[in-house]
Order: sequence, then C-alpha cells, then structure tokens
Amino acid sequence: MAGNSFGEVFRVTTFGESHGKGIGAVIDGCPPGVPLCRDDFEQEMARRRPGGSAFDTPRREDDKVEILSGVFEDMTTGAPITVFIKNKDARSKSYDPIKNLFRPGHGDYTYFKKYGHFDYRGAGRYSARETAARVAAGIIAGKILSKEGVDVIGYTTEIGGIRAESLDLTKLKDSPLCCPDLKKSVEMEQALEKVKEQGDSLGGVVEVRVKGCPPGLGEPVFDKLDADLARAVMSVGAVKGMEIGSGFEAARLKGSQNNDPITPEGFNTNHAGGILAGISNGDDIIIRVAVKPIPSIGIEQETTDRDGNPSKITTSGRFDVTAIPRIIPVLEAMVKIVLADHYLRNSMMSQF
Amino acid sequence: MAGNSFGEVFRVTTFGESHGKGIGAVIDGCPPGVPLCRDDFEQEMARRRPGGSAFDTPRREDDKVEILSGVFEDMTTGAPITVFIKNKDARSKSYDPIKNLFRPGHGDYTYFKKYGHFDYRGAGRYSARETAARVAAGIIAGKILSKEGVDVIGYTTEIGGIRAESLDLTKLKDSPLCCPDLKKSVEMEQALEKVKEQGDSLGGVVEVRVKGCPPGLGEPVFDKLDADLARAVMSVGAVKGMEIGSGFEAARLKGSQNNDPITPEGFNTNHAGGILAGISNGDDIIIRVAVKPIPSIGIEQETTDRDGNPSKITTSGRFDVTAIPRIIPVLEAMVKIVLADHYLRNSMMSQF
Amino acid sequence: MAGNSFGEVFRVTTFGESHGKGIGAVIDGCPPGVPLCRDDFEQEMARRRPGGSAFDTPRREDDKVEILSGVFEDMTTGAPITVFIKNKDARSKSYDPIKNLFRPGHGDYTYFKKYGHFDYRGAGRYSARETAARVAAGIIAGKILSKEGVDVIGYTTEIGGIRAESLDLTKLKDSPLCCPDLKKSVEMEQALEKVKEQGDSLGGVVEVRVKGCPPGLGEPVFDKLDADLARAVMSVGAVKGMEIGSGFEAARLKGSQNNDPITPEGFNTNHAGGILAGISNGDDIIIRVAVKPIPSIGIEQETTDRDGNPSKITTSGRFDVTAIPRIIPVLEAMVKIVLADHYLRNSMMSQF
Amino acid sequence: MAGNSFGEVFRVTTFGESHGKGIGAVIDGCPPGVPLCRDDFEQEMARRRPGGSAFDTPRREDDKVEILSGVFEDMTTGAPITVFIKNKDARSKSYDPIKNLFRPGHGDYTYFKKYGHFDYRGAGRYSARETAARVAAGIIAGKILSKEGVDVIGYTTEIGGIRAESLDLTKLKDSPLCCPDLKKSVEMEQALEKVKEQGDSLGGVVEVRVKGCPPGLGEPVFDKLDADLARAVMSVGAVKGMEIGSGFEAARLKGSQNNDPITPEGFNTNHAGGILAGISNGDDIIIRVAVKPIPSIGIEQETTDRDGNPSKITTSGRFDVTAIPRIIPVLEAMVKIVLADHYLRNSMMSQF
Repeated sequence: MAGNSFGEVFRVTTFGESHGKGIGAVIDGCPPGVPLCRDDFEQEMARRRPGGSAFDTPRREDDKVEILSGVFEDMTTGAPITVFIKNKDARSKSYDPIKNLFRPGHGDYTYFKKYGHFDYRGAGRYSARETAARVAAGIIAGKILSKEGVDVIGYTTEIGGIRAESLDLTKLKDSPLCCPDLKKSVEMEQALEKVKEQGDSLGGVVEVRVKGCPPGLGEPVFDKLDADLARAVMSVGAVKGMEIGSGFEAARLKGSQNNDPITPEGFNTNHAGGILAGISNGDDIIIRVAVKPIPSIGIEQETTDRDGNPSKITTSGRFDVTAIPRIIPVLEAMVKIVLADHYLRNSMMSQF
Repeated sequence: MAGNSFGEVFRVTTFGESHGKGIGAVIDGCPPGVPLCRDDFEQEMARRRPGGSAFDTPRREDDKVEILSGVFEDMTTGAPITVFIKNKDARSKSYDPIKNLFRPGHGDYTYFKKYGHFDYRGAGRYSARETAARVAAGIIAGKILSKEGVDVIGYTTEIGGIRAESLDLTKLKDSPLCCPDLKKSVEMEQALEKVKEQGDSLGGVVEVRVKGCPPGLGEPVFDKLDADLARAVMSVGAVKGMEIGSGFEAARLKGSQNNDPITPEGFNTNHAGGILAGISNGDDIIIRVAVKPIPSIGIEQETTDRDGNPSKITTSGRFDVTAIPRIIPVLEAMVKIVLADHYLRNSMMSQF
Repeated sequence: MAGNSFGEVFRVTTFGESHGKGIGAVIDGCPPGVPLCRDDFEQEMARRRPGGSAFDTPRREDDKVEILSGVFEDMTTGAPITVFIKNKDARSKSYDPIKNLFRPGHGDYTYFKKYGHFDYRGAGRYSARETAARVAAGIIAGKILSKEGVDVIGYTTEIGGIRAESLDLTKLKDSPLCCPDLKKSVEMEQALEKVKEQGDSLGGVVEVRVKGCPPGLGEPVFDKLDADLARAVMSVGAVKGMEIGSGFEAARLKGSQNNDPITPEGFNTNHAGGILAGISNGDDIIIRVAVKPIPSIGIEQETTDRDGNPSKITTSGRFDVTAIPRIIPVLEAMVKIVLADHYLRNSMMSQF
Repeated sequence: MAGNSFGEVFRVTTFGESHGKGIGAVIDGCPPGVPLCRDDFEQEMARRRPGGSAFDTPRREDDKVEILSGVFEDMTTGAPITVFIKNKDARSKSYDPIKNLFRPGHGDYTYFKKYGHFDYRGAGRYSARETAARVAAGIIAGKILSKEGVDVIGYTTEIGGIRAESLDLTKLKDSPLCCPDLKKSVEMEQALEKVKEQGDSLGGVVEVRVKGCPPGLGEPVFDKLDADLARAVMSVGAVKGMEIGSGFEAARLKGSQNNDPITPEGFNTNHAGGILAGISNGDDIIIRVAVKPIPSIGIEQETTDRDGNPSKITTSGRFDVTAIPRIIPVLEAMVKIVLADHYLRNSMMSQF
C-alpha cells in the first residue's frame, strides 16, 4: 500500500534514507536452502557503488552488506532475510544553500505537494541511494535463478545519442561504460567528458537480456511477465520508457514481419523479445530502458522556493554525469526479482 | 497471485472467456455514493466493440453491461460492483482446422507450455475480448476521476509508420482512426486498406493524455505512478513498449534540456510527462504506447503443432487489420483504473 | 482492502446483496484440472438453504449455482471461476415498518455509523444470504482437498446450553440439527420449539473437524493455520468465539497434562487440536465455534431510529429460530477455503 | 505469502531469530507526523522483557530498540520505519542434549515436517522472542490510536483455573501478574510457585479491553474487525482460543437476553463486546484469550527423535512457568496493530 514492497511470493521491502543510518531490505518468501553469505554481495554491490569511473559522484560508500536475519550456516532458512547497509559519507551540509528550493527534474516539488515537506538532505527515500537495497535483494533473487540456469545481463546501448552498433557481450568488461561496442564506448566517454566540463549531464539506453529463461513464467491478464517487468524497471528513478523485443519498432512492422515463425527447433526470429501473451516463450527476454539525463547539473536553472517565489538554482553537490553504467546493476536486480517471483509463482500453480 | 486482479484500493478482478458464457469484472473498493447506472456504459463500450470500422473483425457483440451487484437506486453502495457482459456471437467452429496448431505471435505456444493445454476457441482468457471487462471497470474509475476534474483522452499518433503531425484533440471525433491529424488519418486508412487486401496487418502508436490530474498521486519507491501506469498499459495484449513524457527521446537530451524549469505559474515545459520521482506534478500526464500489428493474418506462416511437427497456418478467422483504434478505450480504462486507485490511496495516507 | 476477499493463493471474492439480483463469488487461483460441474453444488447448497427444518426462515430460495466462467468441459482451466446465485424470494416490503429503526444485535447501527446509510431491506451485504456464495466457493476448495484425502465435517455440539455427550459422526444424518448425539438432538429440538413459541431464539456451539490433513500446512508468525482459521470462522456473521483443540480448557491444564506425548505412531492425545506452532501436525484439526442466538426476534425490544429517538421494535419478518444447523456448511466452507489456500501455499514454498 | 507480515495499510513485517543477530520489524504505511523516539519504546518493552518476576525465564535481554529508518527529528516521515533489537544472551549450547528430539507442545515436529529441518537453538522464528518485534510495532500503532483517544489495556483474568472476581483496572500495577483482583492475584502466585517446584507450568486467560474506539472500524464480510482481531491474537504462540464480548457464553443465551438494547445514550449492555456485524459500535471492545501452559517443563515426557525413534525428554532450559503476564503486552500490541490498520482503512473509504 505504501509503495515500499515489490513481488507477490518473493517479496522485497526496502527501507532507509539517503542521509539516515543506512538502507536495507527485507526479502520475504525466499525458499529455504539457498546458499548465501556476506561475500556474495561484494562484487555486485561494487558495480552500483559510486567511484567506479570519472563520471560518478565523488561520494564514497563502501556498501558492505550485513545480513541481519534469515541465514543460518550460510544457507537461507525460509525465514525473512534482512540486509542492511550503513551510510557513511552522508554530508547533508552541502545541501544547505538550496534547502528551500525545488531542484528541477527532482522529486522535491512533488514530495512537497504530497507530504507538505521534502528531504532536502539528498532526497531521503527518493534518493538513488535506495537502489543499493534493491541490488542486494537482486543478488538473492539471482541465486534462485542461477540454480535454474537463468542469467541476466545488462549493458549500455546508447549514451547521449551515440549508439552501440555491435553486440559482443564478451567485451562488456573492457568498457568502463559497460558498452558491448568498444569503439562507441570511447565516443560515449568523450561525449561525457565534454558535458562534464559544461556542468551538464547525459542520458542513454540500457538493454537487459535474460538468457536461459524457461517457458511458462508470467500470469494471465494483469500479471503478465512484461507488465511486471515494465513496472519493475519504471520504478527505478531516472527511467522514462521501456520496450520489450522490437518494442516501438514493432509498431512500424506488418504482422507478417513481426510474427516470429515457429519451427521444431524454436522461434526463427525474436521480435517478441521472449514473451508471448505475457508468458515467457523460452527465447531470450530483451528489455530496453530509456534513462533520462541526471537532473542535478552545474548550470543555473529557473525554479521557485517552497512559497512559490521565483529563484535560480545551481546544484553544485557531488553528482554523476550520467546514471549509466551505475544504473545497470539496479535494472538487472529488478529484472531478477521479477523473474524469481514469477518462477516461484509458476511452480506453485502448475504443480497441482 | 493468479494475475486476474489489478489495483490496491480500487481493485478490479476480471473473469470470463472469449467463447464462454460471457466476461465480467468485480470492482471492489469503489467508495459509496458514486452515481452509476446501466446507461453509463453504453457509449464507452461502443468504442471498444467491434464493428465500428471497415478494419474491424466482423464478429458482432452488442456488449450490453449488466450490473449484478453493488449499485442501489443508481448509486454505488461501497459493496463490490459486478458487471457482466454476455457473449453472443462466439463461433468456435471456425477454429477447428487450426485447433492443434500454435498461431505465431499468439499465446497458444506459451499457454500450452505453462498449462499443458490452450484454448483454441479464440484464446479463452488471453483473447482481446477480456478487455471489454476492463473498459466497463474503467468507466466506474472514470466516474471517480471526473468528480475531481480529471480527464483521460487517448488518440492515435501513428499507424504503419505514418505519424500524426498536428495534435488538435477537437478533431478526434472526425477521424475513424481517432487520429488528431485528419490528413494523416486519411493516409493511415489508405495504408490499412492496402494491407487488408494483402491479408496482412499493421501496428501503431497510441498516446494517452491525462488532464487535470492533481499533484501528489503516486507512492514512493515501487508504486510510483509511472511504474503502475507502465504495468497497466503493458498488461494490454498487443502493447510492446511505453514511455512517459519525452520517454526515449529524453535519453538523447542533456540535463539542461530535459529538466523542466519551475516558475510561479508552473512548469515551462513538460519533458517529464507530468510525473516527477513517481508522483504527479499537476501537469498533463502523457503516456505513449507501442502497439504491435495484429498477429492473426491471412498470409501463410510457418509453425508447429502441439507435438512439435512443422506445419503451415493461415489464420483466416474474423480479425481486425489493426488493434487501433479499438485498443484506445482499453488503454484509457487502464489509465483511469490506475489513477482512481492512486487517488484513493493518496487521500488515505495524506489525511492523518 | 474493502474486505470482500479471502485467501492469498486460492482467493475468494464474494459479491451481491440480500435483496439485489443475486449473490456470487469469483474464485481466483484454483489450479487447472479440478473436475467441476453444476451438479457438484446441489447437495451442499441444500444444506445451507432455508427450509430444511421447522426452525428456518420461511424465505424460499432454490439457490441454483450458475457457473459463469473458469470451467470448460467440466474441468477448471486455471482461469477465475465465477459462480452466481439469483435471488428469487426477496420481499423487501416486509421491512418497511422498521426501515428507520436499528435492529438490536444487527449491523444496522454500525453500518449507519460507518457509511451514513444502511440497507433496511434485509441487510444487503451483511445479510446471512452472502454466505451462500461462501458455500459455493467452499465446494470448489473441497474438490482440491478431497483429491488429497482431506475431509471437513461440522456438527452441532450444543444448542441453548444442551450439550451433546456422545460423538458418533455416523449419526449426523439422522439428526435434523446435525447433532451426533441423537438423544440430545431431541432435547435441543424441544428447546427450540419452546423459544419459537416465545418469539425468541437460541445459539449454540458447532465443532468442525478436519480429517486427513497432512502435516506442514500453515505459515510462520502471522499466517499460522490456527490464526487463519480463526479469522475465517469469526468472519461468519453470528460467531462470537472460537477455540482450537482443548481451547479455553487448555488454560486450566498444567503443561504436563496439556502437552501431547509424541510416539513413533503419532500423538497420544490431541489437546493441540492438530496444530503446533501454527502448522498442522497430521492429527485431526478440531475447531469449536460459539454461535450467538439469532438477533431477529418476535419480542419487543428497545431501540432508536436513525435520528436517535427512542423507539420499540419487533422484528416480525421471516427468520430462523437458530443459526444452527444452517451455519454448519458455511463454517465448513470457510475451513475448506483456508485449507485449500494453505495447501497451495505450502506446496509452493516447500518444493524449491 | 510467507507469513511474516500483518495489516493492509499499517503493515508490519517482523524478521529475525531467537539465536541470530537480533529481531526487528519494518512498519510500512505509518502516516507522516507521528512523534516517535527511542525512549518511547523503553517502558513497553520492559513489560514483555523476561526478568520481571520469579516465574520468568532467567534469560536476560535489555531489549533496547534501535530505529534504523523512517524517523527524522523525532517524527515519522511516512517512509517505512525499521526497528531492530539486538540479541545478547543467546546461549545455544544448552540446547545441545535435545537437538535431535522433538519437544512436545512445541513447533519442532511441525517445522521439521514442513521444512525438513528445525532450529533446535531456541526455535528460531517460532520462538516467543519474535514477539518483541511485535511489541515494538505495537508501540507505533498505539501512537496513532492515542491521538484518537483510543486506549488498549490487557490484564489477567485467570491462571491455573483461579479466576479474578473483581475488575478494578486501577489495581493492575499492584499485581505482579497484572491481575485486577489482588486477592486472586496472590492465589495465582501461590499456584505458580507450586507448579514451579514440580517443574510444571500453567496457562490462563487474558482479557484485552479497548476504550474509546470510535464506531465504524472494520470492513464488511471477511475483514470484520472481530475476524482480524481473532487472527491477530491467535497468531501469538500460546493462544488456543478467543472470544468477543459474551463469547461462548452468548451461545447459551436467548436472543432477547443477548441483544444489547439501543437507547439514545448508547447500548444498555455490552454482550456484543463492542462489535456488531464486524464493525465497532463505539462501546468497549472486549476480547478474551485462552493461553495454554508453557510446553517446556522439567518433567520427563515421551517423544521421538527426528528418525522416529522413541525417547524421553526433559526440557531443562531457562523457561517461564507461565506465559502470563509477559504475553499481555504482546496481545495488546496485536490489538493495537489491528485497530491502527482499520482506523487508516476506514478513514480512506469513508472520506470520498
């Protein structure tokens, strides 16, 4: 009801604020017997953590995940799992000069309208920091999926209008922007360097691909797999659009072009993006996500204060130049949570 | 859990099959005192009903909505409202020749994989006919919204790659395709005529605009208004993508271009599409939806039967050439249901 | 949220009013492949239907259950099942003289306080007629359970202070009050005859016994099997108390008396009533339910009208003298719904 | 789904194990603006904490509540509130000799049947220690209620068959057993002393009374206030029965005796226990709860090990002689959580 939970069977509730004691998540509905220990979180958390590249905020957090419950002798017990990540480098003083101004493109205005107040110290619940808890929960979801041979991989296909043209996923580790086209990755970095000098920011497009998903995940009518994936990725702060398979391009094809022919060996093409009538068809699931440019910029912008008086604002804090690639593990986590949830739901209904 | 319900407070559960006795919906959580009678459904149901244009299926249904519960003396009582629409023209015989074949682009394959059977008689629950129940539920949601001055209008902005260039919403009633650009509407009709002759089909893009939405709707983190709108529209059969405001275009803008300046009179631009940090900002909410071409076509396609044997299929039943404009009232209904639900949720949390 | 649904996986939503078109239920989450046809409902509905004995209301309803969705060729499909029972003998005129008065012991007063109105025509949603929909849903739950060898039997152990002393369940069919002690059953009938002449009513105690329940049903902490059974039976109109196993008597035993010794053959005693720490232990589940006397009586009572003016009321309509035995199939239905729900929930979590 | 959450709007999820790092709760849906600080928890937690009397377990915990999220400047923000209580004195070694034996009257047997393992170190999730998190959540619920003038008071009415005969609630603080009849309180203490010497335990009855509850709380049909209260109190470990108002005694009254006459000043009697048709009527709500004797006793009992071999067990750990009075703040907490939840739900639906 209050918006902090996701999933029906594998249910994730996040809590905590950007400038409070820390952030965390309760994961309820994880089956017993899933191997899990503190070290499992290390690598994945590092991908979301700021400081990986020159385009990140200089805020430093080590994002150590502490397991408060639900795990005994490095194995889940079936009880709710609680993970907690302490905040360290939370300087709220730097927000003082703008504490009464609405930052354009941020939630300050809407939270103020809804609650009568907003958390000027780095946005509280609507800070991107909340997504660290999602990544931690996604790691647990990923453990369930990997047991079933399901793999979820996100990568950058576009930044600032520069698009990747090749899709060799073995190259991802060589691109600081997690882009499979290394030549375009360099161009993207140059574009980011340029807007960084201008105090401006860039957006882009991330593609998430699910390999090895069995057919049958997704429920009819409202809980279609693509509908739940849509909600999942659109619930991540900077996301403004999403598509499955051919997506908006499908709207420009004829039926005879867009239908994927079925052969004894499987589908000949994958315009559907791995989902038919809301249910996975066994092919790769392909989701593309539009990420808006970071709204916090060093360029003066028009705004008002809480009382509606016109003002100018320059958000000179510690900010990223682009949400990519740090947003990728968050999107992967959301996709994993959806799949783990539907995996458990499907096994229940189909086993009677 | 089983996927047939939508909404937390204003909760819609649809039931019924394409070729069963009929389809219906239970709407639980509608406040008492909302005026409602049988006639309220007539006009809106007609928009979704087949037979409006030359591009629709020749299946004929009068789609009379019967109110089975929850209304007394033309007023809602607070009890669950049940609406029921009898099926009339449900010819399942015409499906006999293809009853063992998976229709490409349809849910036959995935339902078979999930449940071990599929409803060859027009798809059962995954038939577009199920959406008639959504439209009926959306009418009730619309009653709640219109009391608050909120208006939801959908229209065609693209069919078969032909895009509307002007956006005069007063012209909608003059376009059989519900397109605000009457010149382009004629081009779209010509394109549809042409693919109809070929036995093929077309997709397109629908835009839904919400006017008069107060600021403050939407909940933090996972139940963001845009996340719930995404789930809502992606749960409609043929939809393969969605975006809010500038959407995928925002991914190509700089922060300084994409941020909407705030002035004492409101926002100068509306790249955000009326939603900031998941909460409505008082501006028009703008959602764009990619609709794939109808998968049922008169052109022979490659497929297999249930046992995996290769086969050819021609789906020669009674089908639309495009899902547009009949899908528009369905999308409007889903948007209304989301807004009514969040309207009630918001009023609850903010009133303590 | 609005209170008309029960169950997490096997989810029942009832709708309809006492004096409207009819009452019904949507059962979502029933697995596919459960055999079900219209005739399945006949016998069970007859047990709840008024007219079985001299102590029932003279209102006559044939309670034919119509299946509106979810069943194809006498088999559930996995889609939501909708059942509907038309109202026939709904005389609302007889309520006219008391339409502004609160009937003592009824919901008139509280509904008026909550909603600003109440349905004087036989109580609308809070009429016992609503329970016909529960019985219909319970029949479907029972189909799932009987496949697993689970049997649910309710019977009368007390009416008007007269208690059954023997518990031979083979005798139930010979007692018009569904009492296993035929001698006491005659005494109960005599007591009912007497209060009927006085225009008064009686309450009693019903025991529901579950045979063949496998161990393992119930979830930890809040969704304990006994907690959900408690909610289920307490949600039936006239019920004012419930206990499991030794219940209130356990409060008077020592631990050494109340603990059930465990042997290789099972438990030596069953003080626990088949549930330990909220989870079924494989023994018979035993629930006892206190049923208050019917509040509608032919004796003049003190009340007020809607404006708070003192008045006298005699509720001379068509009423039962006691809610027993008609309440028994309703209680059985609620127990079956809880068990079917937990059966499906348990199979999901334990199968990973 | 997994059983660790309670409430629809005011939603409490508990986590943690008896012998893990600690226990806690996430409270989602608490409105913003409720004053709350660490000190608020002190007094209430002390009532549940062991060590208050000679009949408690010697386990020592200081039960300091740490607020991890949702509170800023001693005020709730509307974000999820997380409370955490570290475990200190968790000696699991003392369980070693019985680690393969099922303790009679405990959940060992049923958890083993459900999950294939059980937590021999003090029961993990099904330990009474979990209830500390409920008490902490109840304190927050109580803050919402006290603003509305609602007060919840629990007290002992029976231990080991000895019943309180007077009900002067001002005396509660003078009874170590929280019994309003001081003379009977002494008798109860003597009885406890006696069974303690025998290594045995006692049960009893607790009454919880709600004063100042406004009329209108509770939702129709399944979410009746008494149904939700029943689930709430039956979800507490040792509870085997519950009744509202006259409860089982009502089953022995005539309608003319049990109906509460309505006068312009209110109800003349309170057989209903403050609830009519599932909705509060403004009178005191009265709930009585049967508490079984503590199953851990120093007397040898018959049991089996995990493999079904017969054995003897003496549970010589650190245990209470009776669950009363330590269970009282837990029952109060559950009642408060139900009321706060229904208070928020009611305000939402009735305000349109």
